[in-house]
Amino acid sequence: MASAAASSTSAVAGGSNKGAAIATGSALWNRVPKANAELFALTYGALVTEVLRDFGDDINAVNEQLDKMGHSMGVRCVDEYLAKLSTAAPPCSKFLDTAEVLAKSAFKMFLGITADVVIHEGTEGKEDSYSLIMTDNPLAIFVELPDQYQSPAGEGQPLLEYNSLYCGLIRGALEMLNMRVECKFVKSTLRGDDVNEIKVALKEVVAEGAGAEYQEE
Amino acid sequence: MASAAASSTSAVAGGSNKGAAIATGSALWNRVPKANAELFALTYGALVTEVLRDFGDDINAVNEQLDKMGHSMGVRCVDEYLAKLSTAAPPCSKFLDTAEVLAKSAFKMFLGITADVVIHEGTEGKEDSYSLIMTDNPLAIFVELPDQYQSPAGEGQPLLEYNSLYCGLIRGALEMLNMRVECKFVKSTLRGDDVNEIKVALKEVVAEGAGAEYQEE
Repeated sequence: MASAAASSTSAVAGGSNKGAAIATGSALWNRVPKANAELFALTYGALVTEVLRDFGDDINAVNEQLDKMGHSMGVRCVDEYLAKLSTAAPPCSKFLDTAEVLAKSAFKMFLGITADVVIHEGTEGKEDSYSLIMTDNPLAIFVELPDQYQSPAGEGQPLLEYNSLYCGLIRGALEMLNMRVECKFVKSTLRGDDVNEIKVALKEVVAEGAGAEYQEE
Repeated sequence: MASAAASSTSAVAGGSNKGAAIATGSALWNRVPKANAELFALTYGALVTEVLRDFGDDINAVNEQLDKMGHSMGVRCVDEYLAKLSTAAPPCSKFLDTAEVLAKSAFKMFLGITADVVIHEGTEGKEDSYSLIMTDNPLAIFVELPDQYQSPAGEGQPLLEYNSLYCGLIRGALEMLNMRVECKFVKSTLRGDDVNEIKVALKEVVAEGAGAEYQEE
């Protein structure tokens, strides 16, 4: 299953066309089985609480664990996404093409929301990156972080990233398209920002066929 | 919030009328925000995995922890349920009245499914109980339990109850209606049964007004 998805890069839908990605997202959202968004958010909250309880004060480890869980889900989500696509759609072979597909199609299918895209182009076409901007955050509808998690405990101390699951999801999904990315929540409404912003930066395009091995962690 | 809900027993909708409960359930389901059921199931799976990792071999503690998380959610769900009800509905003041309301309205609103009800009436009207029978199990759509969790490790050894969250949800919700119940998964498709059956047995009707204190654990 993993290798099938890894070799199907060019089949992933949406391309850079925002309109097409929106239409694809709506069609996919209509097609997926639904759950109650509030119970989903409460369940994710229980998961974060449990990870915090398990890793205690090691906030970096908590963030990594949430990201890792998201990664496993993201790898799986690509298969679900491809399985539910009913029409051939423009290819998504370049990194920057993935922005609108993630923001308008995949986010819609898996989270019920869409995000806005801001492209940050790097020098000489390397280290391209983009930001996904979300006003809503379905993982955190009931959440208010306690003070201790809103600002770092001290200079250079890590901060709990409640939303790390998103980063893992995106990282896992793009890995299946042979793109190794770094993904970071740079703005969060849970920390008082006005929007949520996830920055996705391309690190490496993995050679075709290496995907299946690579994603074994 | 807790005391408001605890004193509103008679306002909870559905009564023993199955038809009314089905209609209420559909209306509530149409009204709630939705999430992707597959991502919800994957998230719950991550939660169970994390609790297992945390409590290791103490399967009783794992089951209890999942039940406890469900309890917190169930307490909250009653508020959501009451808030989203738009019409006055038949009262649900007797324990057995809660069966169809849970099965057809609350399950529909929170899980997107309905359950069948089998009433087991006790002697002298005490220890009344009923079973909720579900063919679908939205928490476990991708789940296959490893062998070690499908049968007990030895005589008298506890068994992992992957679905403990349901029991906690029901326990928490009914507690807000002043009913202390015992809730157990007696059949599970994850263990090879043909359906999922949750047995709900009334232990005590808590005096009106005691709810707020009682639910502090």
